[in-house]
Amino acid sequence: MRMTAAGSGTGRAAVIGCGVIGAGWAARFLLNGWDVSVFDPDPGAERKLRAVLENARLALPSLTDRMLPPEGHWEFSPCLEDAVAGAGWIQESAPERLDIKRALLGELGGRIRADAVIGSSTSGFRPSELAEACPAARQMMVCHPFNPVYLLPLVEVVAHPGTDPDLLQSACRTLTDLGMRPLVVRREIDAHIADRFLEAVWREALWLIQDDVATTAEIDDAIRLGFGLRWAQMGLFETFRIAGGDAGMDHFLAQFGPCLALPWTRLMDVPELTPGLRKAITQQVEKQSAGSSVIDLERLRDRNLVAILRALKAQDAAAGTILNAHDAFLGQLEASDADCDRPLLTVARRVPLDWTDYNGHMNEARYLQVLGDATDRFMEVIGCDAAYIAAGMSYFTAETHIRHLNELMAGQGIRVETTCLQGESRKMRLFHRMVRNDGVLVATGEHFLLHVDLSTRRTCPARPEVADRLRRIFDAHSELGWPEGAGRAIGQKQ
Amino acid sequence: MRMTAAGSGTGRAAVIGCGVIGAGWAARFLLNGWDVSVFDPDPGAERKLRAVLENARLALPSLTDRMLPPEGHWEFSPCLEDAVAGAGWIQESAPERLDIKRALLGELGGRIRADAVIGSSTSGFRPSELAEACPAARQMMVCHPFNPVYLLPLVEVVAHPGTDPDLLQSACRTLTDLGMRPLVVRREIDAHIADRFLEAVWREALWLIQDDVATTAEIDDAIRLGFGLRWAQMGLFETFRIAGGDAGMDHFLAQFGPCLALPWTRLMDVPELTPGLRKAITQQVEKQSAGSSVIDLERLRDRNLVAILRALKAQDAAAGTILNAHDAFLGQLEASDADCDRPLLTVARRVPLDWTDYNGHMNEARYLQVLGDATDRFMEVIGCDAAYIAAGMSYFTAETHIRHLNELMAGQGIRVETTCLQGESRKMRLFHRMVRNDGVLVATGEHFLLHVDLSTRRTCPARPEVADRLRRIFDAHSELGWPEGAGRAIGQKQ
Repeated sequence: MRMTAAGSGTGRAAVIGCGVIGAGWAARFLLNGWDVSVFDPDPGAERKLRAVLENARLALPSLTDRMLPPEGHWEFSPCLEDAVAGAGWIQESAPERLDIKRALLGELGGRIRADAVIGSSTSGFRPSELAEACPAARQMMVCHPFNPVYLLPLVEVVAHPGTDPDLLQSACRTLTDLGMRPLVVRREIDAHIADRFLEAVWREALWLIQDDVATTAEIDDAIRLGFGLRWAQMGLFETFRIAGGDAGMDHFLAQFGPCLALPWTRLMDVPELTPGLRKAITQQVEKQSAGSSVIDLERLRDRNLVAILRALKAQDAAAGTILNAHDAFLGQLEASDADCDRPLLTVARRVPLDWTDYNGHMNEARYLQVLGDATDRFMEVIGCDAAYIAAGMSYFTAETHIRHLNELMAGQGIRVETTCLQGESRKMRLFHRMVRNDGVLVATGEHFLLHVDLSTRRTCPARPEVADRLRRIFDAHSELGWPEGAGRAIGQKQ
Repeated sequence: MRMTAAGSGTGRAAVIGCGVIGAGWAARFLLNGWDVSVFDPDPGAERKLRAVLENARLALPSLTDRMLPPEGHWEFSPCLEDAVAGAGWIQESAPERLDIKRALLGELGGRIRADAVIGSSTSGFRPSELAEACPAARQMMVCHPFNPVYLLPLVEVVAHPGTDPDLLQSACRTLTDLGMRPLVVRREIDAHIADRFLEAVWREALWLIQDDVATTAEIDDAIRLGFGLRWAQMGLFETFRIAGGDAGMDHFLAQFGPCLALPWTRLMDVPELTPGLRKAITQQVEKQSAGSSVIDLERLRDRNLVAILRALKAQDAAAGTILNAHDAFLGQLEASDADCDRPLLTVARRVPLDWTDYNGHMNEARYLQVLGDATDRFMEVIGCDAAYIAAGMSYFTAETHIRHLNELMAGQGIRVETTCLQGESRKMRLFHRMVRNDGVLVATGEHFLLHVDLSTRRTCPARPEVADRLRRIFDAHSELGWPEGAGRAIGQKQ
């Protein structure tokens, strides 16, 4: 098992316009092993890119339980033509003004690759409006992401009638390989899908403030302590379907439908953003985030999103399914290495942001989580995999001994090397060495496992093919000598 | 440390109307130790209550790392007057029709307690509209919860001009003690705050389906894979403030404001819920949840919400702060018990829903998490608490030995009893016995810890008061004899 320097699907991307969204795209590409050339005439753009990259380097690797490919290289190009030359993906994230976007897309002519995807990050304009101005209209589509681009999986992909269908498909594959989820919007409309909802909520929120019904902090609480929690895991309709109970969605519509006629919302009007309203909002928001800088808030947001996404990942639900699919993709990049003349490499990963505790380092329970992952990987290698377990047998851990030898901080890379100390079908004893990327041994884990029948929950012999593979690895590892630290009890002299 | 049978603030609640919302209220009260009497003439109401309670018993205890008080008792009352007599809280959750709600509230007269809160679950009506009909209008306010009521913390509390301000405050205290977050809405408006947003999104969603822009599944993806994730942790305004970058909210308003004038949303009109539109929605939703019953979806939703809420709890952010505050409240219910003539009770809790793994039982890493919590509690007892750690010293685990003796399933209760095997200021050795509520020993954990200076990350002596307390407990525990299983190494003969 070895990481390849560049997996399939990586290459070079051009990022045009490097504000928060453009820099987020750059980070998503770079951390997935792509090289990125950036075009942005704003002298502050490089600072923005560095700031976003710093956040992304902490957060994005926290989503995977594999190793991402080595980070790509980035450079700023003083001219648009140089930036896009040779790029397999060109992403436009200029300010949300039709004239600016059309002018930039208008320059994407002869020197771009014929198989390059041209994506626009526009949240409002239709692809047709933009493609009219672009000589390479066939390659152009909307690819609208959500901030922070390096963490949120959703990308709305909208083609115009002239978009090459093969390029649309290839764009979706690339986005998937980047760990994102392309949602192909079938009909062009202003603001696609998600931003129509954001717009509706935004207008209503402005009215609530204008009418002094609620402050920004009260509105945020009304969102994040109630339906916001629901919407992180199911959307509007599945949630309402549940509310309909056994009688289903039609019952819900019959019950809730008439309320639509009640005069609740004031959405018919657009509130005017008067200086007074602007000032009220700005003051309320500043009070709400008292003492937190934007960088503090970004870090807080990223930690929360990592924690929520990892929670959903463990459930394999909602956005978590996309993370698990990305892990499977990253696993394919690892060359299989089943040589038995040395300990097996069973884990290669970074410490996620949400694994540290009040002492500032990785919590002790996470050591056992990583060691447990190493055991799971060893079980897979001997054939005790998901299918074997689904068929009714598994190994259960009966005893564990851990030496915590050094600290681990969030973001640090680790690998685990596993030696088999005992391999007798019913009984398996493993010794894991957890090594930090700087070569320091941070922990050892020794584990005694019993093979069990999952229906009786009692020990039983493993199937012959599993027992054989276990035996072969044990025999080979017996040649390696007894590892330092194995067989120890607490309180025993060194 | 001992659980009291009923903490402060528990008592008897009356639930009027026992659909999904009423049953959710009943579950929230019961699992927090209140007795509940229910009035609902629908013969199917008891079945609904039992189904919701079954879900709530799995999910709600998963949110706390303490023990909830013993569950209260419930009964159905055939008559409204009996149900409300003597209740400290009366919650009306009848169907969303003004005439029905007014008729029920109109019957709350002489026999209710003068200090009882009368809360209405209405999502749309103003408290004034309801209170007009209620003889006990002084006690009446809107308490609008969100489904599932037993998991989501938000309650919109809306008074009318005649509401007794003391009762409003007492209602907020009770809701807080139930683990909820009362959001006092300062001005009565139709649909309060949150449902104005839901209404806006709902209208826009109906248009998207009516115009065949998106299916229900596409809309749900557009929500839960993008802004839905953001809104579980920060609301609309704090999210937008971040988007404004260093320039702040005013900059964002200047940039984004003009887009409001663009003709994005179709919210000016209310789409008619024609039979055709209703059929399209119902069919799309059924396809989206293919093969999942409503019960499946409810369980999936609850597992996801538990996982998200626990993730935010670990970050002490957003809704997680409310869970931590509730744990602190539950901790006050536990009488302190620092007798040293027996092992210390250091953990009493249930196994949360999201702690099980592919083998169907509590994952091995969670054993160490519980054992680590027991160690943390022991540290608190000797004075190595949050303040001591903030001042720069702590204990780090150096070595761990776990025997996994029996399985644990989600929802099972466990407690940990801790013996001190060594207590010498710099060095601490603990032995934890993890016992299931049926008395079965499920694991033992032996832990060797070193006292460290957090600035140098090296060992140092503990402060005298901590060293003394540790020594006293060690001396007392030395009398208890060497626990079975301590000092073992893996592979050692019994």
